[in-house]
Amino acid sequence: MKDAGIPQIKGTDMGILVVGSVALDSVKTPFGSKEDVLGGSATYFSIAASYFAEVSVVAVVGADFPEEHVAFLRQKGIDISGLERQKGNTFRWKGEYGFDLNTRTTLDTQLNVFAHFSPKLMAAHCSKEYLFLGNIDPDLQRSVLEQMKRPKVVACDTMNYWIETKRESLLKTLSLVDVLVINDAETRQLADDPNLIRAARRILSWGPRQLVIKRGEYGVFMIGEKSIFIVPAFPVEEVLDPTGAGDTFAGGFMGYLAAAGVHDDAAMRRAVVYGSVMASFNVMDFGPRVLGNLTYPEIQARYREFRKISFFEDLSEKPPGRMEEL
Amino acid sequence: MKDAGIPQIKGTDMGILVVGSVALDSVKTPFGSKEDVLGGSATYFSIAASYFAEVSVVAVVGADFPEEHVAFLRQKGIDISGLERQKGNTFRWKGEYGFDLNTRTTLDTQLNVFAHFSPKLMAAHCSKEYLFLGNIDPDLQRSVLEQMKRPKVVACDTMNYWIETKRESLLKTLSLVDVLVINDAETRQLADDPNLIRAARRILSWGPRQLVIKRGEYGVFMIGEKSIFIVPAFPVEEVLDPTGAGDTFAGGFMGYLAAAGVHDDAAMRRAVVYGSVMASFNVMDFGPRVLGNLTYPEIQARYREFRKISFFEDLSEKPPGRMEEL
Repeated sequence: MKDAGIPQIKGTDMGILVVGSVALDSVKTPFGSKEDVLGGSATYFSIAASYFAEVSVVAVVGADFPEEHVAFLRQKGIDISGLERQKGNTFRWKGEYGFDLNTRTTLDTQLNVFAHFSPKLMAAHCSKEYLFLGNIDPDLQRSVLEQMKRPKVVACDTMNYWIETKRESLLKTLSLVDVLVINDAETRQLADDPNLIRAARRILSWGPRQLVIKRGEYGVFMIGEKSIFIVPAFPVEEVLDPTGAGDTFAGGFMGYLAAAGVHDDAAMRRAVVYGSVMASFNVMDFGPRVLGNLTYPEIQARYREFRKISFFEDLSEKPPGRMEEL
Repeated sequence: MKDAGIPQIKGTDMGILVVGSVALDSVKTPFGSKEDVLGGSATYFSIAASYFAEVSVVAVVGADFPEEHVAFLRQKGIDISGLERQKGNTFRWKGEYGFDLNTRTTLDTQLNVFAHFSPKLMAAHCSKEYLFLGNIDPDLQRSVLEQMKRPKVVACDTMNYWIETKRESLLKTLSLVDVLVINDAETRQLADDPNLIRAARRILSWGPRQLVIKRGEYGVFMIGEKSIFIVPAFPVEEVLDPTGAGDTFAGGFMGYLAAAGVHDDAAMRRAVVYGSVMASFNVMDFGPRVLGNLTYPEIQARYREFRKISFFEDLSEKPPGRMEEL
């Protein structure tokens, strides 16, 4: 029997499979710029998740992908047997952030080997109980799912590009997943409704049990059929680069769920907080350097701090002031 | 002796004085439009605060101000002895909101009688213990403060216009107030720092004990020297018009503080939640109609609901999953 409060990994099937991109990012923010740092959705996801559970990555890199990055992922205990190396160059993304880091402009995207990414799972990966489908073509997301024994929890991400160009395919994928991790603008766009709650309820009616809506520096809005949970982002005084924060969040979220082995409302809420904690570390540096070098006490201390900044007392039985007269 | 959990009003000096605008608003949102509805910062503030404490309004209206609005404010138990009626027209504002209600364009502003507003307090108002200085010229804000016996809590609002055109005067006002209620863009602009926490700390060093930063649909960020409190906005499925939400928030916030009579961190947090509750009602309709017709059980039920959507469990002592190995 499993105690929800004391999650433990039991056997490798309890691990997580993530399918997504491994990239080299060039990023400019008001606080500096970096060229060709380790990036990609599967990278940030797997590093964050590795603190909680076994993670296996399915992705593709080019001949130019630095060996030090491979060594770094391996050193984090991440299973990279599904990280394929192909002829050609690694996926490259170049972007720039505005004054308050809330707006991002993509300056250049070179898909390179990622353009023909068509994930083929190894046998050992097909029985993983937790699956995260990173932001790739919804056709590919379904092809991954079809290769697997039915996992316990399937989560996926998407983006405006797929909403605009592959809507029907995306809706098919959504009908098969448990959790959709998405940002707020995409939620409104996908449901064509400016009200976030109504938009979310519409998407829930298409299949997912839970929507986990990322709102950047404003935190996370999780909504299921019967429950809403909203948390702010953990406030960070030295944000250098928000790249990868969403994928880092997803990694902490799925990592905690896999570690907990339960998926009730209380566990989902804690998973959201752990995801937010991991994301708050990631924004403190370019690339995944800070994220990749955390200790367990640092993570737990921030979870506790998170609770302090969100806490307020319940009502006393007696009403305040004039309300007594109403 | 006062119990923090059972706030009560004791005598009229415990009441609130608000100085600001009473206006006629014409508003267009994706969900409809209304002409000449009752508006203005002092209006929304005083209606929200009236559920908690005695409120006195100091403001000016023109000869055209409808008698029904006067009757409505009086019926809410608001002291309007300081609501001056002058020759000419009432302050008029006309604005339009975009698709997701997060962007607002001012189409027309007619200051009318508000252009020469120069608040002179009546004797009975000078001894109020709670003062809210709405968004008016910082010179006028100080002139109000100078007419009063030192209130227990002075809060003020401001806007980009005063930050840009009357910065020195605004800084003088800030050195005299306890609580600055401001939005996030203004916080960044005032401190000239894109990072909200650093910007807030800078402003705190100029005088206020607490900054209460409004983030619209994303909620409120409160920061003092030793404590940070962040709450989301209460999620509302039928937002018709966000006009006045910030002032309504401030009214619920100050109303609760006045009713509680204590201003420690726990009381400030509850005040933020009550302010958010009141704002969440206000956005459900054009003008203050919904806000003005609430019952005590409705307000308390939403406070309780608010706690449910924000709650997550503290940590168990044992760490999750792989963390045990770290």
